[in-house]
Amino acid sequence: MIKVVIIGSGNVAQNLIQSFVNSKDIDLIQVFSRQKDAVSHLIDTTKITSDLANLVRADLYILAISDNAIALVSSQLPFENRLVVHTAGSVSMELLDKKNKRGVFYPLQTFSKKRMVDFSEITICIETEHDSDFKLLEKSAHILSDKVQKISEVQRKALHVSAVFVNNFVNHLYQIGHEICLENKLSFDILKPLILETANKVMTLSPKEAQTGPAIRNDTKTIERHLHFLTDDNQNTIYKTLTQSIQHNGKKL
Amino acid sequence: MIKVVIIGSGNVAQNLIQSFVNSKDIDLIQVFSRQKDAVSHLIDTTKITSDLANLVRADLYILAISDNAIALVSSQLPFENRLVVHTAGSVSMELLDKKNKRGVFYPLQTFSKKRMVDFSEITICIETEHDSDFKLLEKSAHILSDKVQKISEVQRKALHVSAVFVNNFVNHLYQIGHEICLENKLSFDILKPLILETANKVMTLSPKEAQTGPAIRNDTKTIERHLHFLTDDNQNTIYKTLTQSIQHNGKKL
Repeated sequence: MIKVVIIGSGNVAQNLIQSFVNSKDIDLIQVFSRQKDAVSHLIDTTKITSDLANLVRADLYILAISDNAIALVSSQLPFENRLVVHTAGSVSMELLDKKNKRGVFYPLQTFSKKRMVDFSEITICIETEHDSDFKLLEKSAHILSDKVQKISEVQRKALHVSAVFVNNFVNHLYQIGHEICLENKLSFDILKPLILETANKVMTLSPKEAQTGPAIRNDTKTIERHLHFLTDDNQNTIYKTLTQSIQHNGKKL
Repeated sequence: MIKVVIIGSGNVAQNLIQSFVNSKDIDLIQVFSRQKDAVSHLIDTTKITSDLANLVRADLYILAISDNAIALVSSQLPFENRLVVHTAGSVSMELLDKKNKRGVFYPLQTFSKKRMVDFSEITICIETEHDSDFKLLEKSAHILSDKVQKISEVQRKALHVSAVFVNNFVNHLYQIGHEICLENKLSFDILKPLILETANKVMTLSPKEAQTGPAIRNDTKTIERHLHFLTDDNQNTIYKTLTQSIQHNGKKL
């Protein structure tokens, strides 16, 4: 059994803890959390520590903490020459303190504490400083998911930026849809089948094939009506920017 | 049985034809299509006409044609005082020629010829000029879907704009994710579980609760790294516009 310690208590940490606790092939021997309460609903409290000095020996230490804390916390670890990985999409492996053997374990998904995800469908992007550590990290990732990929730092950063577009920005557009509905006394529920169909469509069609609407049709009358309707400056700017981008892309390809 | 004629052969028309053909309570007696071939895979060719003068008598005529054609085609119909509806989200009912009894039958979904949708989950927004026609239109819509709503013209326009945000614009962000992946020799498949989870999340959480990422965290270092990574001007502009909007919204609410 691979012995793992998770350092962190945020969205990614909590989802990882939940998955590792349910796994027969990983022994999650300890979790570091500044507030023990933050993770006590997920794991036996005797396995939680709030003192880095108390960290026990493990095969793999996963730092699931905020990007800005990675350098500092990795330098405070009270051991050397062990495998320590972070879970960040846009942070170089080099940011980890070099006293340990370094790596990256980046699961490409959106994580919330309120909603535990199924890792089996998620691609876990891995990278290690030393080839000799790769197998162990790969094996640990494979316990959670069939989709494990060796990904370079540049590729990982590209994926992270892509994820911002298809997750953070997409969700924000859902929020604008939500706002427009509320302002017009309509339930957001009406949009839900459309949201699901839009996502499901690109499982089989390319986004380019799936594109519909006034921008790609160059239906200037409808675009003008919509811009007239959108009295909120911010919504109006986003509408213009994305409409131009769709039209620009249509011409380009 | 309600006798229906569909006028049109595009995405919406083809999806409606397919659903009506499979329904036991609607008799789709005729389809008008300028090119008979366009719909001959969906309905018996004897029921297809390419001449408006040949239109038969029906209880309901559905104009599923482009917004710009609605006024002209409705004026060319060779009959009066029958129920004629259009399927457009942002066009007033008044655009239909007033020689007939007018209405709107707007199914809120994205339609493609390559992918037939299940109407049962879709909200069909209806409106009639005369109260006396409402019941028939409502009954026809209910045959396809449990979700039928009487929606005013202003509300319908609001829904149409919302749909542009949560469908057209969202799909375009998928396309940008696709492009970034291709440029970095990554498969778009890696993003698919994230795309689905992003959509599924707002089935139970509000978009505001579901929002994650560097913009809402105000993680300026990551935002700077991403903007540095995005050398395409258009992608860079969209990143900035949506990041500012997320930050602005976070403060506003």
